[in-house]
Amino acid sequence: MKKTTSRLLISSSKNEADIHYLCGVRPPEGAVLIKSGKKIYLLVSAMESGRMRRTVRQNVTVISPDQLGIKPGKNLSQWIQKLLKEKQLSSVEISGDFPVGVADSLRRAGVKIHIIKQPPCPRREVKSADEIKAIRQSQRAAVEAMKAAIQQIASARISRDEMLVCGKTMLTSEKVRATICHTLLDFDCAAEETIVASGMLSADPHERGTGPLQAGQPIVIDIFPRSGKTGYWGDITRTVCRGPASAALKKQYNAVKAAQAAQLKMLKAGVWTDTVHRTGAQLMESRGFKTKTINGVAQGFIHGSGHGVGLEIHEAPRVSPANHQKLRAGHIITVEPGLYYPSIGGVRIEDTVLITEDGYKMLCSCPKKLEI
Amino acid sequence: MKKTTSRLLISSSKNEADIHYLCGVRPPEGAVLIKSGKKIYLLVSAMESGRMRRTVRQNVTVISPDQLGIKPGKNLSQWIQKLLKEKQLSSVEISGDFPVGVADSLRRAGVKIHIIKQPPCPRREVKSADEIKAIRQSQRAAVEAMKAAIQQIASARISRDEMLVCGKTMLTSEKVRATICHTLLDFDCAAEETIVASGMLSADPHERGTGPLQAGQPIVIDIFPRSGKTGYWGDITRTVCRGPASAALKKQYNAVKAAQAAQLKMLKAGVWTDTVHRTGAQLMESRGFKTKTINGVAQGFIHGSGHGVGLEIHEAPRVSPANHQKLRAGHIITVEPGLYYPSIGGVRIEDTVLITEDGYKMLCSCPKKLEI
Repeated sequence: MKKTTSRLLISSSKNEADIHYLCGVRPPEGAVLIKSGKKIYLLVSAMESGRMRRTVRQNVTVISPDQLGIKPGKNLSQWIQKLLKEKQLSSVEISGDFPVGVADSLRRAGVKIHIIKQPPCPRREVKSADEIKAIRQSQRAAVEAMKAAIQQIASARISRDEMLVCGKTMLTSEKVRATICHTLLDFDCAAEETIVASGMLSADPHERGTGPLQAGQPIVIDIFPRSGKTGYWGDITRTVCRGPASAALKKQYNAVKAAQAAQLKMLKAGVWTDTVHRTGAQLMESRGFKTKTINGVAQGFIHGSGHGVGLEIHEAPRVSPANHQKLRAGHIITVEPGLYYPSIGGVRIEDTVLITEDGYKMLCSCPKKLEI
Repeated sequence: MKKTTSRLLISSSKNEADIHYLCGVRPPEGAVLIKSGKKIYLLVSAMESGRMRRTVRQNVTVISPDQLGIKPGKNLSQWIQKLLKEKQLSSVEISGDFPVGVADSLRRAGVKIHIIKQPPCPRREVKSADEIKAIRQSQRAAVEAMKAAIQQIASARISRDEMLVCGKTMLTSEKVRATICHTLLDFDCAAEETIVASGMLSADPHERGTGPLQAGQPIVIDIFPRSGKTGYWGDITRTVCRGPASAALKKQYNAVKAAQAAQLKMLKAGVWTDTVHRTGAQLMESRGFKTKTINGVAQGFIHGSGHGVGLEIHEAPRVSPANHQKLRAGHIITVEPGLYYPSIGGVRIEDTVLITEDGYKMLCSCPKKLEI
């Protein structure tokens, strides 16, 4: 056997994007990929193999178990062993999220396994012209959906008891989410986890939101659609308030907006990701907005400042205190400071931008205004 | 330490449904669940913990790292070790799809790990009254979307060159898929992977479908929506042909329809899953429809006859030759024989049914007719 070490991947939610990137097509669940130098082998069931052969990149060889003399079935370890033997590969690199059952089985069969931290496609961070175009399209869909949502909230009537009313019924998170999803569909995009969270619920960054919307309360709208055609994501968040906002909410909103402006202003190739985060965090803290955990519930600026966007909604590079990494031209990241307090609610403002040598480009712009 | 063995799960696409089932709420990515007897501990970041505490079942204790004296961050192995120590647990059971990096790290720390095949929630197979209601709702959404899609295709005009035309433009897979998705949204359901595949493309069961639709060709429409509210899925497939179908296509359609009828007729508690599959396979084979793999591409009846539907779109019990298991009252399964040949195209007919002691109940009915 050759002494070559190859990278081994099994398709699951964790690395579907890597396989998609390497093969140019979304893989079926349980597909096995082996990358050996520039050669890529993609092992899929006979049922999936025809479609895969039609659509993968030229440097990818699609193999089905029958071609290896293996009966159909889902013994992934057996598939992999046979393929490694055929290609004379004796050792493989895997990520920590590789399934332990298959890893142990390969170890028992004498395959040398190295668990490495390096991602299988570090190049994925830096986007090509085609990728920038695809993300820009998804971002445009997100912005159009955001405008439709804000328009729907802005045109709602305020009832005597401070509820938002549309026609003869209450305007709810669900109705605004439906408006967003219908708009996205017109761009062949879907966004299952769209957030329209108001009042107390908005203080939880990952709360999807439910029920009637109130006047004078923050409404956090976070839209992250994926294109059905390209597989690339977009991501945008706005916070709005129908009718007059309290002085406290205005102060919180202005702090987040100023933090985002300061972060955007410093973006360019060569800037450190954790420095970007700290700039936003310090600005908000200097205006009196503390971050702390009370009874196991985090309050203040309780998440990172951003993340890469591509074939995954959250990918490298992370813009967070835990990641010390230089931004590069071609990175596409979100810039999304936020503040969350149970007494007032949440405020988050997020845009997706392309890093350039001397600054950044907004992928699709959308107004920022609290009171509507 | 106690000699108790507990089940350990980390939320990812593979077992999100188990954690959802055990906790009554959809977990965030990377959540850690430890089930020890009837006690369930759910470990999530401080940012997620407030929402989780509000929504989990009573028997679930939500814990965030700060409560264990651990600094924020994503060292799952450290979280788990600390929690196991605190709860005096020295060994854990995991599934084969558990991430190898965390497993190896726990082994190095002296935690006894047992990889077991038994699923963490075998009870998930048998649905409660509430679950049946939820799946029926998703299935109703799927049927309404199917009717809208078929209506759109049926009302298309046939051009001189045998293409389907709607208004002044071609009717495409994309347009029918949009109709389906818009309809599903009105039921708070989403179905990212809806299939509308026609002609040659329909010969691949997992081809999503693209481009203009032709008259006289099979169009396979497979709709599997998930409810945003409940998280439960529905699943239905119909095959239609706008205008007259060829004799060969009619024969293929009738074989699949007869196979499904024979399979449905035999359903009841106590029947073996592989017997159900074989009944359909033999009926179609007796009508001359062979199954084989040519040049790595499978043809004929190339998939199982069905699968369980619940918090996952594909879950136990599988109705396939590889699964010898008795059906039980409360199982909800699809019954979906199909035939696929590159020369003619694909035909699949699928319904989702509830198994009862003496038969089955269709969750939501929808007409079956080839030519429209």
